[in-house]
Amino acid sequence: MTESPAFFRSGGRGVAELRPVRLTPDYVQVSEGSILIETGNTRVLCNATVEQGVPSWLRNSGRGWVTAEYGMLPRATLTRTPRESERGKIGGRTHEIQRLIGRSLRAVVDMHALGERTVILDCDVLQADGGTRTAAITGACAALAIAFSRMVATGALKSSPLRQMVAATSVGIVEGVTLLDLAYEEDSQAEVDMNLVMTEDGGIVETQATAERRAFPRARLLEMMDYAERGIHELFTHQRAALAQAAAGAVKIGGGD
Amino acid sequence: MTESPAFFRSGGRGVAELRPVRLTPDYVQVSEGSILIETGNTRVLCNATVEQGVPSWLRNSGRGWVTAEYGMLPRATLTRTPRESERGKIGGRTHEIQRLIGRSLRAVVDMHALGERTVILDCDVLQADGGTRTAAITGACAALAIAFSRMVATGALKSSPLRQMVAATSVGIVEGVTLLDLAYEEDSQAEVDMNLVMTEDGGIVETQATAERRAFPRARLLEMMDYAERGIHELFTHQRAALAQAAAGAVKIGGGD
Amino acid sequence: MTESPAFFRSGGRGVAELRPVRLTPDYVQVSEGSILIETGNTRVLCNATVEQGVPSWLRNSGRGWVTAEYGMLPRATLTRTPRESERGKIGGRTHEIQRLIGRSLRAVVDMHALGERTVILDCDVLQADGGTRTAAITGACAALAIAFSRMVATGALKSSPLRQMVAATSVGIVEGVTLLDLAYEEDSQAEVDMNLVMTEDGGIVETQATAERRAFPRARLLEMMDYAERGIHELFTHQRAALAQAAAGAVKIGGGD
Amino acid sequence: MTESPAFFRSGGRGVAELRPVRLTPDYVQVSEGSILIETGNTRVLCNATVEQGVPSWLRNSGRGWVTAEYGMLPRATLTRTPRESERGKIGGRTHEIQRLIGRSLRAVVDMHALGERTVILDCDVLQADGGTRTAAITGACAALAIAFSRMVATGALKSSPLRQMVAATSVGIVEGVTLLDLAYEEDSQAEVDMNLVMTEDGGIVETQATAERRAFPRARLLEMMDYAERGIHELFTHQRAALAQAAAGAVKIGGGD
Amino acid sequence: MTESPAFFRSGGRGVAELRPVRLTPDYVQVSEGSILIETGNTRVLCNATVEQGVPSWLRNSGRGWVTAEYGMLPRATLTRTPRESERGKIGGRTHEIQRLIGRSLRAVVDMHALGERTVILDCDVLQADGGTRTAAITGACAALAIAFSRMVATGALKSSPLRQMVAATSVGIVEGVTLLDLAYEEDSQAEVDMNLVMTEDGGIVETQATAERRAFPRARLLEMMDYAERGIHELFTHQRAALAQAAAGAVKIGGGD
Amino acid sequence: MTESPAFFRSGGRGVAELRPVRLTPDYVQVSEGSILIETGNTRVLCNATVEQGVPSWLRNSGRGWVTAEYGMLPRATLTRTPRESERGKIGGRTHEIQRLIGRSLRAVVDMHALGERTVILDCDVLQADGGTRTAAITGACAALAIAFSRMVATGALKSSPLRQMVAATSVGIVEGVTLLDLAYEEDSQAEVDMNLVMTEDGGIVETQATAERRAFPRARLLEMMDYAERGIHELFTHQRAALAQAAAGAVKIGGGD
Repeated sequence: MTESPAFFRSGGRGVAELRPVRLTPDYVQVSEGSILIETGNTRVLCNATVEQGVPSWLRNSGRGWVTAEYGMLPRATLTRTPRESERGKIGGRTHEIQRLIGRSLRAVVDMHALGERTVILDCDVLQADGGTRTAAITGACAALAIAFSRMVATGALKSSPLRQMVAATSVGIVEGVTLLDLAYEEDSQAEVDMNLVMTEDGGIVETQATAERRAFPRARLLEMMDYAERGIHELFTHQRAALAQAAAGAVKIGGGD
Repeated sequence: MTESPAFFRSGGRGVAELRPVRLTPDYVQVSEGSILIETGNTRVLCNATVEQGVPSWLRNSGRGWVTAEYGMLPRATLTRTPRESERGKIGGRTHEIQRLIGRSLRAVVDMHALGERTVILDCDVLQADGGTRTAAITGACAALAIAFSRMVATGALKSSPLRQMVAATSVGIVEGVTLLDLAYEEDSQAEVDMNLVMTEDGGIVETQATAERRAFPRARLLEMMDYAERGIHELFTHQRAALAQAAAGAVKIGGGD
Repeated sequence: MTESPAFFRSGGRGVAELRPVRLTPDYVQVSEGSILIETGNTRVLCNATVEQGVPSWLRNSGRGWVTAEYGMLPRATLTRTPRESERGKIGGRTHEIQRLIGRSLRAVVDMHALGERTVILDCDVLQADGGTRTAAITGACAALAIAFSRMVATGALKSSPLRQMVAATSVGIVEGVTLLDLAYEEDSQAEVDMNLVMTEDGGIVETQATAERRAFPRARLLEMMDYAERGIHELFTHQRAALAQAAAGAVKIGGGD
Repeated sequence: MTESPAFFRSGGRGVAELRPVRLTPDYVQVSEGSILIETGNTRVLCNATVEQGVPSWLRNSGRGWVTAEYGMLPRATLTRTPRESERGKIGGRTHEIQRLIGRSLRAVVDMHALGERTVILDCDVLQADGGTRTAAITGACAALAIAFSRMVATGALKSSPLRQMVAATSVGIVEGVTLLDLAYEEDSQAEVDMNLVMTEDGGIVETQATAERRAFPRARLLEMMDYAERGIHELFTHQRAALAQAAAGAVKIGGGD
Repeated sequence: MTESPAFFRSGGRGVAELRPVRLTPDYVQVSEGSILIETGNTRVLCNATVEQGVPSWLRNSGRGWVTAEYGMLPRATLTRTPRESERGKIGGRTHEIQRLIGRSLRAVVDMHALGERTVILDCDVLQADGGTRTAAITGACAALAIAFSRMVATGALKSSPLRQMVAATSVGIVEGVTLLDLAYEEDSQAEVDMNLVMTEDGGIVETQATAERRAFPRARLLEMMDYAERGIHELFTHQRAALAQAAAGAVKIGGGD
Repeated sequence: MTESPAFFRSGGRGVAELRPVRLTPDYVQVSEGSILIETGNTRVLCNATVEQGVPSWLRNSGRGWVTAEYGMLPRATLTRTPRESERGKIGGRTHEIQRLIGRSLRAVVDMHALGERTVILDCDVLQADGGTRTAAITGACAALAIAFSRMVATGALKSSPLRQMVAATSVGIVEGVTLLDLAYEEDSQAEVDMNLVMTEDGGIVETQATAERRAFPRARLLEMMDYAERGIHELFTHQRAALAQAAAGAVKIGGGD
């Protein structure tokens, strides 16, 4: 692994270290499953909604559907971004991200066990400091797990259709140095940017690596995957703690604030 | 004042009593002024953005502009509401509310003192349990005050263009009983619904009263105004506390959570 | 009541005097109820359309629905305004006005007596000189009354679902003087602007008062309500005359022109 | 010319006879040129707006531009038509008609004499009973002539850029019979539908003939053109009368009503 | 016929001569009927899609529907044109053209013989050098004929609902000279522009003639129709050859390239 | 490498074999660089447009910009897909693909050498049989190279800003077997789907791997990369041949057809 004692990260963070992570369950009380995920200054509110029925192409198939929507509050960013509702259309970046979240979750859900229901995961960024799409995946999977657990508890489902958890993080190369979990400032200087979505048993669900400026060799890709895997294992621990907290039912509206 | 010992409000609340109010300053660190306002289960995040320049009709007038945008996260409500960005247009209710917020704030800002700057107040509802528009006004005014104070502190403004604070609340008539600060459940049964926006010195900035089912006499309007005034005075206390907290600079990101 | 001999209104109008009002029934022959309302130079064409069926949330409730749409011809104003159809969306002002018209009419209609029908009131401004929204309410209520009378005449309804008439006017404060029924020129200088929608028996259906520049005391609100009530009583007389004319069936297409 | 004693037209109209025509100048007082044209029950309000400047492709060419917009009030028709502003886009029929009106007028305007100004002709249908597009051309040309005359009177233009008047009408074949100026009922049964736009000196500006059901021979086209020419000459008389009335300045707002 | 030895057309083309025409059947293998039509440098890809069902106003009528859509690739033109999908709406020219194509085809289809099916003709311009709308009509009719022949072959239809072929071309007047089949360069200078859509037996389906700058006499219209008829007869020959080629089944994907 | 003698691919293709590839230069004569790329039945038309100027965030930076737009003709697919221009917005898939194409090309262009120009690559799918996004990258890079060569030839550029070629292909896992260059039928059954974009010197520009149904181990990712690299080297050969053909200037419009 590349070591770079000379590289300074905010807060003295190591090159292969995640920012502080916190998952608050039940932040929104009215949704079937709710997680506020914070990774450093990035905050994403993830809510699961379970609706009866499925899109037309799945009707009478006995299978369910899981999809995601992603949004960013206008002042989640340093400079205000106009609302997509004002502009009258959703931008390409939003489309790309919400499709990624949806695919990542569908890969771990048993759609027959879900039955003809649709789960929508709304991932809304309250504050953005890099890594919002991977935080959204990690948070949304936890929100989904909570929703399924409660459906099992009420008898709506026999067992949870979630085969295992997924979590995700980013890695990048900045000034030649491989760094885990890029903050916005780092991301804006990165030469290469990679996301990895992985299951608890180490399977790859999705990986996307992009050379922002120059192509890179395969060896570098493998190094980035090593960093990311390490970070993802830490995220699974946070997810499990949040699920335990939600199950304990100790969380009250606003109580954790 | 109408007394109604028989009328049960959630939490044993009195007919002329507000729900618990909390204003958290600096919830979003990157905005010029930020307030998370909670009134009962209603939570609205209000962020102020100050931009150079004004709309074309004010150019070279030496005067500034204050405007607001209002949004609701899809799962702020019990039943999920599709995103306006997905539908490709802003609905009538959103338009109506954001125009109300903008008018309310403009009435207390000295536009010459502001100079040719535009302030946008983004009011985003994280959880909706009635009274989101009045909470947005109360929170947005506090966010605006914080933004102005900091501009005075940095020397960008000589003195705050905010002449005085505004705050707002709702009153309604439910089953013949006048009730202050309607929660969603109460609002959906109300025969009459009124909002009052008022300044610290007791001036009316805006009032809107609507008979949802039957017309009502003027005496009832005056009674509703009495209730609302009482609630608004309590809100001013909360605003002042939040401004003091923001000024103390004791707030850290996420620190209050 | 404030008297202001020094204040000059166009045409020598008194401070508490309406502009000349005229309601022409059956201006459009093909609609179920049609009124061209003129108040001074403001002209609004109001047409009622009765359709079978109701929006989905009312299906099988046995209740009807009344809604309104408001539009302005591009050259209704001194400076041409681009069409909302060209811009691809309806503006906030339009939304706000058509919601106000709809609420005002619904407050006086017995929805069970209407049954599962939807009435749409199209209010289109041919020429705008202030007070278009209140003219639209006054004209639309007359158009609705005509439509209901004819449905009673043909046996489609047993009795008219309209419990009583509503009418509306505006009042404002210009240079400290309270003025009834603001023309455009006056409205653009007003410090305070109020609309009142009232029933024949004096009940308030909706009132909205806005400080355009500075907050105002409650006493001033009451004075404005006094002016408005007086004007509205005169409008009821014009509505009744138009309904009588429509009932007489003496009106021919274009005959009044 | 085909004679058809057996063919009954409403009001006993002959096959080559126009419906009653009326042009009311200055219907809208605030526009540069305004005509309300009525042909039978069809009523179109035509307003001219003169703006400084031209579209980008004409900048610094010394030439002006003339364009048209066409709209229909929702209840201009027997069955209500949803607003294009509600649907968020302009339909194909509207586009086709407003392009036709614009082309027709541009063919008779000397763009160098107009200079770098844009004239927009808004043609809004208040009631539709067939022939709205040809009525719009005839009315818009008169509105344009009034606007130009007044600009000459105020010295803004040296002489009118309008080389000659244009007028337009429709002809069709219904049950094998050629009929001038189709009303809606006739138009909906027509086998062939033709519009002719012609100048005072008999030149063709635009003609469009469409077989709604079956192709037709060239001889039939020529016969339809004969009918249309005859009708257009009558329309020129009405236009001239309206221009004279406008020039006389005898028209007051609402005075003709 | 006007002769103009002095007028030079690209490639030494005569005034009443078409550009080289080529129709390639089955260019797209997956559509029910496919023609790539080339007239000079203009290339339009026409694909027929047959779907079950009809628009709502034809349901249970036993009759079918034929409609067309027209598009232009952004770089079909010398200067790139932004996509209509990017702009979020279809422009007036596109609407006008696709309505013309649809009407032209419907005039030769027996809708009862088609039954309750909808045929959509997609006409996409790969390269534009004038005459794209008439090429689209000529190509779309051939694609429609192929689709119908194959439906007869598979037994889905008893006989082809196409009563006869239609084809179309343009004629114009450039510098006083009548010219058949205008290329883009010629079209941009034309004083008059005419399209003629005609059936094999010489019937007129649609004709549209427009004075771009000055009105023109009827004699000139007739001369232009003579030119156009001559060109259309040549187009029928090309259509027949393409249908024969398609019927021979000798065409392979890309085989002709 | 997995061998699977039992797996049957259309045309007897081997598991690690590309479909037949053809690049036709100058298919559209009016664009700065034009390639029609065919891989099996997939056909994508790629046109380069060079415009002066850059987006606002690059103004006065001395750097250029390269972007891409992707579209699909409605009948490129077995079942017709409604036009995005009709729907009024661009879908998520289109956004995702055109962003991928743009990023891939920007990684190999020296933006300082390009100077303040914008190159738009329009990639339009005429027929879709899988692999349209990777075909678009391969074709667009060739179209870009042609455009740059011609700018060098005319002296507009000193040397080509293209540092090296990029090409792309897909690999997938179908029924446990790794397959290169998936056709539509294969893609719809794939368990894992990967795209690789690579430079001539073997650098990775972008890679994206997605588990459609189940997560997969890292070893499988590496195997897929081996297959893809092999295919991409073959694509470079096809690109070079097309560039040579374009340089030879032997291509005439339609001449290759």
